[in-house]
Amino acid sequence: MRLIIGNKNYSSWSLRAWIAMAKTGLPFEETLLQLDTKEFYQQIGKVNPALKVPTLVDGSFVVWDSLAICEYLNDYYFDGRAWPQDRSQRTLARCIANEMHSGFPHVRNAMPMNIRAKRKITIDEHIQKEIDRIVQIWTDCMKKQSSPGWLFGQWSIADAMFLPVVFRFITYGIPVSDEAKAYMDFVIQDKDVQRWIKDALAESEIIELDEAGEEV
Amino acid sequence: MRLIIGNKNYSSWSLRAWIAMAKTGLPFEETLLQLDTKEFYQQIGKVNPALKVPTLVDGSFVVWDSLAICEYLNDYYFDGRAWPQDRSQRTLARCIANEMHSGFPHVRNAMPMNIRAKRKITIDEHIQKEIDRIVQIWTDCMKKQSSPGWLFGQWSIADAMFLPVVFRFITYGIPVSDEAKAYMDFVIQDKDVQRWIKDALAESEIIELDEAGEEV
Repeated sequence: MRLIIGNKNYSSWSLRAWIAMAKTGLPFEETLLQLDTKEFYQQIGKVNPALKVPTLVDGSFVVWDSLAICEYLNDYYFDGRAWPQDRSQRTLARCIANEMHSGFPHVRNAMPMNIRAKRKITIDEHIQKEIDRIVQIWTDCMKKQSSPGWLFGQWSIADAMFLPVVFRFITYGIPVSDEAKAYMDFVIQDKDVQRWIKDALAESEIIELDEAGEEV
Repeated sequence: MRLIIGNKNYSSWSLRAWIAMAKTGLPFEETLLQLDTKEFYQQIGKVNPALKVPTLVDGSFVVWDSLAICEYLNDYYFDGRAWPQDRSQRTLARCIANEMHSGFPHVRNAMPMNIRAKRKITIDEHIQKEIDRIVQIWTDCMKKQSSPGWLFGQWSIADAMFLPVVFRFITYGIPVSDEAKAYMDFVIQDKDVQRWIKDALAESEIIELDEAGEEV
């Protein structure tokens, strides 16, 4: 299998599919395309009509969209175990994963993923409302467990969907509940997550500078 | 089962879950909450921490997000048949359903669903690019079939995800390919879709008037 992704420092959607791929434990190739370059559109256009990363190429199957890739891997490589097996937990996991997949536009726009950076931004009421909802989700999941861990005990697609938000909250120094902080600390020490961070820090793509002279 | 939805004329997310519910063929109750009212938040807050419609209440299970509800119904009431059974078709259906679920922000913002209205808007290049992609998806699916029908022959969740776009394209008079037009015509004559349209036309919610004196 080959997973086509964008820059690891920035591509939050790529990260979700990548972590799910990593959690299968199967070998896979990575093809990294520099986002927003002419080369990007030339290359991705050869395989994916939606012109987006992440794209998974699995023999004759081409799969795109972060959540569709996770569901595909769940069907064909996790034997259904990338969602919790208990019906109540499975239902909740699907709800929050889909809620993240289609929602939280203010957090997305105001707080782009940028693993290498530390930033301050003004948090307006729309952003704060979304942050509060995410913190509520993580807190509720952690309260059901005896020690900090994945949202539903075992790793699940819900964790994949929220992983970029963990990085966003760190980059922008967002205050969270103790339970949410415990979840973030747990996630960050995961060995696959650490591989991604290491690669993101080492990336040497063309960097544009913003007005403050920092990386955009 | 009870499905909590918003106004049928406007709530595109509700429509997706509702059509999937209708396609199960099972009896279900509908609770319609007027969007953006104090009453809405009071009522939805009692059952759904995400404060959103659609929300499905199935005994002790509460399910929200349009696609999560579709997947839930697929798992527990469609016996997996709300996605195509062929692996290649199933994969494509999931990709385009998820692509719709998380994408097309320009179409969403510029062309809110409003079944009762006919409108003209200025189509900028961002909106046009998204329209072109949707038309491409529908056209490619129709070209694989001998006569116009659902995107993958049998009704699937992909059709649920695109149904609001069919209404948007009609309301805003968007030119499309012959194949896409044939898909839209097929969808609109479906008996469940016709039930939704009839209810949307009959709704008597508090209407605000825009500057031209038309319904907002």
